[in-house]
Amino acid sequence: MMKRRIKVSRHSGDLRDGEIAVPLPERPDASLFFIGRIRTPWKRREECPKNPRETDAACTIVLDPRWTDGLKGLESVSHVVVLYWMDRARRDLVLQMPHHYAQGRGTFALRSPVRPNPIAVSVARLLSIEGNKLTVIGLDCIDKTPLLDLKPYFATTDSVPEASVGWHASEKSRFKTAPGSDRRATGRGKSYRQRT
Amino acid sequence: MMKRRIKVSRHSGDLRDGEIAVPLPERPDASLFFIGRIRTPWKRREECPKNPRETDAACTIVLDPRWTDGLKGLESVSHVVVLYWMDRARRDLVLQMPHHYAQGRGTFALRSPVRPNPIAVSVARLLSIEGNKLTVIGLDCIDKTPLLDLKPYFATTDSVPEASVGWHASEKSRFKTAPGSDRRATGRGKSYRQRT
Repeated sequence: MMKRRIKVSRHSGDLRDGEIAVPLPERPDASLFFIGRIRTPWKRREECPKNPRETDAACTIVLDPRWTDGLKGLESVSHVVVLYWMDRARRDLVLQMPHHYAQGRGTFALRSPVRPNPIAVSVARLLSIEGNKLTVIGLDCIDKTPLLDLKPYFATTDSVPEASVGWHASEKSRFKTAPGSDRRATGRGKSYRQRT
Repeated sequence: MMKRRIKVSRHSGDLRDGEIAVPLPERPDASLFFIGRIRTPWKRREECPKNPRETDAACTIVLDPRWTDGLKGLESVSHVVVLYWMDRARRDLVLQMPHHYAQGRGTFALRSPVRPNPIAVSVARLLSIEGNKLTVIGLDCIDKTPLLDLKPYFATTDSVPEASVGWHASEKSRFKTAPGSDRRATGRGKSYRQRT
């Protein structure tokens, strides 16, 4: 057992009308290691694609060399679950008012980066692995985003083609959102435009 | 900004032949809040189902009441992405020897709970929400597992029915694994039997 000091950002920035912030717990419960960085073509959030299906840009996941042996066998998968950390997002909002949406939504009904634990989950297509570097398609995060985990994607349990998000379907028909923009269910992205 | 002390478990338990452990980084990089607990029928890992499709048991996700407003709108989704924390798993293995498999696999090619950041990602079917409690089907974790996040599952970007895991398909044909046991790609589960 070791005890370590960790910084927790506690934003107190502006709230939009209808948004609700809560006090964060006094003490964090667990800690994370950044195991690498995601290199993307997008240096600022304004440059990021609106969603990962909007771009065919190849991104490079650079693993800390200490973990390179952990990639053995991953070259045989077609898709990877990528977990990354959005450390620029505030963590204390429970109700958010995304742009372009008619009403407030709970944080857990959104894929916004703003959430108590800003862990993003994305499914990316694996193109190649060389040493500690993976080339993938299907990420839309800002350059140098910290990496938390990589997992093989199993269609048998991770894929649910018939899944539906009722509120989002309603918003789409209401605002005639373009079909390709399904993933932009956020709007409160601060430094990140992509979903979590 | 606040500084907090956090414990990081640094196991040094037995390795199986062929397994490789690495020193964890000196310092963690970020911290997590447990936002609730997952109540399941399984008190010990031996009781847990081999995979989430093996059981129709309803599980209850109990959110810390501070976050209850965050559920607004989630009742309209059919499936939820559930992120939880497997704090009993060691974090320092890069190469693992799962039971029943012919050779070692890298940590990131497995869904084993043993990984540098033991965050599990599961897709669960939402049955109902009452106050701060959600009833879901599709979890296989031990009772009282700490909850990290809930997200709506979007078929448009989270579902990839054609995804494949080459090494797993080979193992299946080699060992004639039963079709329902796809998710048990682990074996190094310590206190958790389910995938991450």
